[in-house]
Amino acid sequence: MPGTPPTRFVYLGPEGTFTEQALRTIPAAEHGIRTPARSVPEALEAVRAGEADAALVPLENSVGGAVSVTLDELAIGSPLVITREVVLPVEFRLASARPTPLAQIRTVAAHPQAYAQCRNWLLANLPDAVVVDVLSNAAAAISAAAGEHDAAICAPIGVSRHGLTVLADKIADRADAVTRFALLSRPAPPAAPTGDDVTSLAVSIRHDQVGALLAVLTELAVRGINLSRIESRPTGEQLGTYVFFLDCTGHVAEARLGEALQGLRRICADVRFLGSYARHRWSKAAAEEPLPAAAGLSNADFADSAAWLARIRAGESS
Amino acid sequence: MPGTPPTRFVYLGPEGTFTEQALRTIPAAEHGIRTPARSVPEALEAVRAGEADAALVPLENSVGGAVSVTLDELAIGSPLVITREVVLPVEFRLASARPTPLAQIRTVAAHPQAYAQCRNWLLANLPDAVVVDVLSNAAAAISAAAGEHDAAICAPIGVSRHGLTVLADKIADRADAVTRFALLSRPAPPAAPTGDDVTSLAVSIRHDQVGALLAVLTELAVRGINLSRIESRPTGEQLGTYVFFLDCTGHVAEARLGEALQGLRRICADVRFLGSYARHRWSKAAAEEPLPAAAGLSNADFADSAAWLARIRAGESS
Amino acid sequence: MPGTPPTRFVYLGPEGTFTEQALRTIPAAEHGIRTPARSVPEALEAVRAGEADAALVPLENSVGGAVSVTLDELAIGSPLVITREVVLPVEFRLASARPTPLAQIRTVAAHPQAYAQCRNWLLANLPDAVVVDVLSNAAAAISAAAGEHDAAICAPIGVSRHGLTVLADKIADRADAVTRFALLSRPAPPAAPTGDDVTSLAVSIRHDQVGALLAVLTELAVRGINLSRIESRPTGEQLGTYVFFLDCTGHVAEARLGEALQGLRRICADVRFLGSYARHRWSKAAAEEPLPAAAGLSNADFADSAAWLARIRAGESS
Amino acid sequence: MPGTPPTRFVYLGPEGTFTEQALRTIPAAEHGIRTPARSVPEALEAVRAGEADAALVPLENSVGGAVSVTLDELAIGSPLVITREVVLPVEFRLASARPTPLAQIRTVAAHPQAYAQCRNWLLANLPDAVVVDVLSNAAAAISAAAGEHDAAICAPIGVSRHGLTVLADKIADRADAVTRFALLSRPAPPAAPTGDDVTSLAVSIRHDQVGALLAVLTELAVRGINLSRIESRPTGEQLGTYVFFLDCTGHVAEARLGEALQGLRRICADVRFLGSYARHRWSKAAAEEPLPAAAGLSNADFADSAAWLARIRAGESS
Repeated sequence: MPGTPPTRFVYLGPEGTFTEQALRTIPAAEHGIRTPARSVPEALEAVRAGEADAALVPLENSVGGAVSVTLDELAIGSPLVITREVVLPVEFRLASARPTPLAQIRTVAAHPQAYAQCRNWLLANLPDAVVVDVLSNAAAAISAAAGEHDAAICAPIGVSRHGLTVLADKIADRADAVTRFALLSRPAPPAAPTGDDVTSLAVSIRHDQVGALLAVLTELAVRGINLSRIESRPTGEQLGTYVFFLDCTGHVAEARLGEALQGLRRICADVRFLGSYARHRWSKAAAEEPLPAAAGLSNADFADSAAWLARIRAGESS
Repeated sequence: MPGTPPTRFVYLGPEGTFTEQALRTIPAAEHGIRTPARSVPEALEAVRAGEADAALVPLENSVGGAVSVTLDELAIGSPLVITREVVLPVEFRLASARPTPLAQIRTVAAHPQAYAQCRNWLLANLPDAVVVDVLSNAAAAISAAAGEHDAAICAPIGVSRHGLTVLADKIADRADAVTRFALLSRPAPPAAPTGDDVTSLAVSIRHDQVGALLAVLTELAVRGINLSRIESRPTGEQLGTYVFFLDCTGHVAEARLGEALQGLRRICADVRFLGSYARHRWSKAAAEEPLPAAAGLSNADFADSAAWLARIRAGESS
Repeated sequence: MPGTPPTRFVYLGPEGTFTEQALRTIPAAEHGIRTPARSVPEALEAVRAGEADAALVPLENSVGGAVSVTLDELAIGSPLVITREVVLPVEFRLASARPTPLAQIRTVAAHPQAYAQCRNWLLANLPDAVVVDVLSNAAAAISAAAGEHDAAICAPIGVSRHGLTVLADKIADRADAVTRFALLSRPAPPAAPTGDDVTSLAVSIRHDQVGALLAVLTELAVRGINLSRIESRPTGEQLGTYVFFLDCTGHVAEARLGEALQGLRRICADVRFLGSYARHRWSKAAAEEPLPAAAGLSNADFADSAAWLARIRAGESS
Repeated sequence: MPGTPPTRFVYLGPEGTFTEQALRTIPAAEHGIRTPARSVPEALEAVRAGEADAALVPLENSVGGAVSVTLDELAIGSPLVITREVVLPVEFRLASARPTPLAQIRTVAAHPQAYAQCRNWLLANLPDAVVVDVLSNAAAAISAAAGEHDAAICAPIGVSRHGLTVLADKIADRADAVTRFALLSRPAPPAAPTGDDVTSLAVSIRHDQVGALLAVLTELAVRGINLSRIESRPTGEQLGTYVFFLDCTGHVAEARLGEALQGLRRICADVRFLGSYARHRWSKAAAEEPLPAAAGLSNADFADSAAWLARIRAGESS
C-alpha cells in the first residue's frame, strides 16, 4: 500500500537473541522496521514517545531475567497495553564455527543464564570443557564465529545469523522451557475476542494482607475468571503497597470479565488494565487447552442471567 | 374516585388478632375490603385465584407460628411477590370484662403461644391463677368478654373490639418482640427504590453443603449486599435440596443488587424473586439504621466502576 | 438394678401428642418416669432445676410451632445440651369413636396446624365437613372419643390411647413431613462419636452482615464441616446481634470439628455448644446417607496432616 | 573452641558482588569459610552433598535475575530449608581508579541490570558517557581498577575490595531497592520463634484455577496468617501444575501457623516447607513493622480457643 509507512517495531536487543527471534514470528514485523533497544525501559520509552509503534520485550521466564524490569515499567509511567503475546520455546544449541567432535571442545562461550539452563547437559557431555561467561547469547555466537572459543551456547537465530554449525540441538535441561514476550503499544481499543483470550492487569493492594488478596481472587472467582499467572511485586512508590500482576482468562469486551474488572476497580487501591489479547498456543499439548468455564459461569450463562434479571425488573413471573 | 373498585385485602384470621391489627396500619386497607382467611394457604390462594388483590400474612417470628407455612407457600406454587412489610410490636395486654384487682383473677384465657411469651409476668403477678388454653388471641378476648374467664391475654385490637378493660399493659416477657407481616400480590413491577429497601429471595441449593451456601453468600458479599435474615428449609419436593430464604439489603432496580441476583441465578438450582420493598422501620433505635455500604461498594461506586470499564473498552488510558 | 432411681423425663405435653409418641421411641424413657410439661420453657426449667434428668421438646418443623421457643430457650439461660435427637414422621390419621363411612362425617376436630397440613386431603375427601378448631392433637382425639365430633385428625398415639377407629391413614398433604425433637440435659461429656454425628451450635454475630456469616461458614468449610441446618434469630438481649443456629456434621471429639469450633470461638461474639449426638436416621432414603467428606478433609486426612506437621517441626525432611 | 571446624559457607559468586557483601553481614560467616559458587544450582548442590554447611543465594528481586533459578531449585530435588534471610539495600556507586570529575568520564563499565537500575541517573549526570556491558558488578569494578574504563557502576564491596574512589553514591533510580538473600541448609529443627518470623513454602496446585488458589489463601486467612510474597511458577515436571511460592507471617512452631500448614497439606497436591526464620528488618520504617494480628487471631486467641474446646469436651458448661 503506497504511502502507508511501515510499522516501527523496537525490541530488546542486541540482534541475534531470542527477542529478535520472537519478533520475527509476527508477520507484520517481517515487513516492518525492527530496531533493537539497549534495555526494556528504552524500548518502552520509544513507544511512549511515539518513536516506535510497538515494542517486543520479554515478560516472563527463564532467559534474560528481564521480567522484573518489564513488570515494573508496565506498572508505572504512562500506560501501555499488550496487544499480542509471543511464546517461544527456549531451544539452546551448541554451535561452532566448523564441524567439531565434542571431545575436542575445550572452551564454550555462554551467557550465565544460558549456562545455568544447560548445566546438566554440559556436565554429561562436555565434562572437561571450560565455560566462559559472555554478555548475551548473541555475544556467544559471535565469539564462536570469530574462533575465540571452540563453541557457543546460543539461540537458533544466532546459529543462522553467524553461519555456525550445530553440534548439538535442544541441550536445555528442561525441555519445555519457554519465554513469553509481550508486544506493547500505546492504549487503543483491543482487538475483538477470539474465544481464548488473556487479560493482563496490574492491581495495587493497600497492604500485605491475605484478606486483600483473597478479595481480589474472589472478585475473579465468582465470575468464573481463572488466573494463569500471579506475581507480587513491592512498589517503590508507596511503602506497604504491593502490585499484583495477574493474567486472567477472558477478554475485556466480555460481560463476565467486564463485571470482574469493575469489581476489582471498586476494591483495589488501583487497577491498571494491561491489555486483552489472544492467547498464544505454541503446542498441541492438553495442558494448553483452555479450561472449560465452570458450571453456570460461561458467557452464555451470563447472557441468560441478564435476561432473567430483565424479566424480574419488568414484573414478569421470571 | 367513583368507578374504582376498592382494593380487596385478605388476611390471616380470625378477626381481632395481630394480623388484622397489622393490616389496619396500611392506609389503603382502611378503605379497602378486608376479609379474614382461615389459614395462610387459603389467603394466598385467594390472591393467586384473583379473588383478592393482596394478602397480609405473618412472615416471621413469635406469635402464631405461621412462619413455616408462609415460607413454604412462597417457595412453591404460582409466584407471588411481597410489596410491603409491616412490623408490629407484640404487645400483650391482660384484659377483663370489667375492672378487677389482680388478686381476684382466678382464671386467664390465653393462646398457648401468648401464654409462653408472658409466662414470667404471670408467675410474678398472678402466681395462683389458672391459665386456660384457647385457640387464638381473639378467642381469649371473646371468652373474657363473655365472662367465661376472669381475664384474657390478648392483642390491643382484641381489647378495643370487645370493649374490655385493660388490667395490665405490655406484659410480654421480651419487650422488643415483634411480628413481621408480608403483603403479597401477584407479580408486578416493584415500586421505585427508596434508598432503604429489602429484597426477599427463595434460593434452592442442590445439597446441604457449606460450600454451596458459601458460594451464595459470596455472590452477595462481593457486591456489598447484606442479609438481615437467613433461614433454611428442607423442600418436600426434591430429596436433598434445601431452600434458603434470604432478606437482602437493596432493591432489584439497583445495579449492585441486580448483579448479585444474576450471580445467584447462575450458581443456584433455582432462585425465586419474592419482591423488593421499603424496609419498615418501627422505631428510632440505632439498630434499625441502615448499615452504611462497605468501602467501594456503594451504588455510587458501582456507577464509577461502570464508567471506568467503558473507558477501558474504548481504548482510553483509563 | 435395685437402688438405681428411674430416669426422670419431662416432655412437651399434653399426653397423646407427637412429643409423647417421640419420647416413647427412646428405650430408657419406656422404663423411666414421663411427665408432660405445659410449655417448652417449663420443660427445660425442670431440667435446669434438677427436677428432671432430661426433657424432650420439638426442635424443628411442621407441627406445634414450638421451634422458636425452643431455640430461644437454648440460646439463653443456663446451658443445656442435646444428647439425642428423635425424628418422627408426621403421620396424621382421621379417626372416629366407631367405624363410620366418610360420607357421614359432618364435623372434624383438628388442631389448626394439623388442619393446615391435611387441607388438600380434606378438600378432596370431606369437602362438606365442618372443621372445628381444638387446642391440640390430643384434644382432637379426646373430643372424637367423647362423641363431640364425628371424627378427629390426630397422631397415631392419640388413636391407640383413646381406642379410636382409624378411618383414613396418612392424610397429610406432604408425605415426607417430619418433626425433629431434642432430648436435653445438663452439660456432661458427650457420648463417643458414632461416625455419623451432628453437632448443634448457637453462634452470635455482631451485626447483620454477610461478611460475618461468610466468616463463620468459612471456618466450617475449610475443615470440611457441612451444615444440615441454619437459622437466624434476632436476640432480645442486644440490639443488632443475631444468633445463628447451626447443625454441623461431625462430633466435638473429632480433630476437624474441634478445630472448626475453635475457629468459631475466635471470630464470633459468642459460641454456645449445644451438643454432639448421633444423627437419627428414620428411613433408608439416599438423601439421608451421610455425605462423604470432601477430598482431603476426612478424619484420616486430619490425622495425616498432623503427623506431617510433627515431622516438619522435628526438622525431618517431611 | 579448638577442634570445632569452622562453618563452611558457599555463596553465589563471583567475589565482590552483592551476595558476598550480604554474606559478610552474618557474624558466623565472618569467621567461617566462604567459597564462591559459579551458579545457584552449584551452591545448593554443595550443601546437598555435604561439601558446605550453608549456601547464601539471592531469593528475590532486582539485581542478578537469579530469583527463578533459586525458586526452581528449592521446589525440586532433595529438600533444603531457609535458616536466615538477609536483606541488603541495593546501593550502586559510581567508582573509579582515581578521583575524576564527572565531566571527564567517557566510558562506564556496568552489568546490564545495574545499568538498567541507574539509567535515569546516568542520563542526567553522564549523558555523553558510553556504557560498556560487563558480566557482573565485580567485573565492572575490576575493569575500572585496571583502567580499562574510566569508571564502573559497582557494589560497595567492589569499591573497597579494589581500592576504588567513589565518584557518586546511591545512584540507583529507586532509592528503596533491596535484594533478599536466603541462607540454605539441610533440613534441621528450626530455631525458636522470635515473635516476628517468616515461613516460606512451595505449594503445588493441580490446575491454574482461581478456586484452588482461593482455597490456599483461605486456609491462611482463617488462621490470621498474612502473606508478604506470592509468586506463581509453572513446573517443568507436570503439565498444568503450578507452584506457588509463599512467604507467610509466623513460625512453624506456633499453633496458628501449624494449623494453617496442616490445612495446606490436606488440600494441595504438594506442600514443601522451606523454613521458618526471623524476619530481617533493615530499617526503622513503619512499613516494616509487623502487622498486628487480626481481631481474634493472635497466638493468645489460639491458646484461649484451645482451652475452651478442652472444657467443652470435658462436659463443662464452657
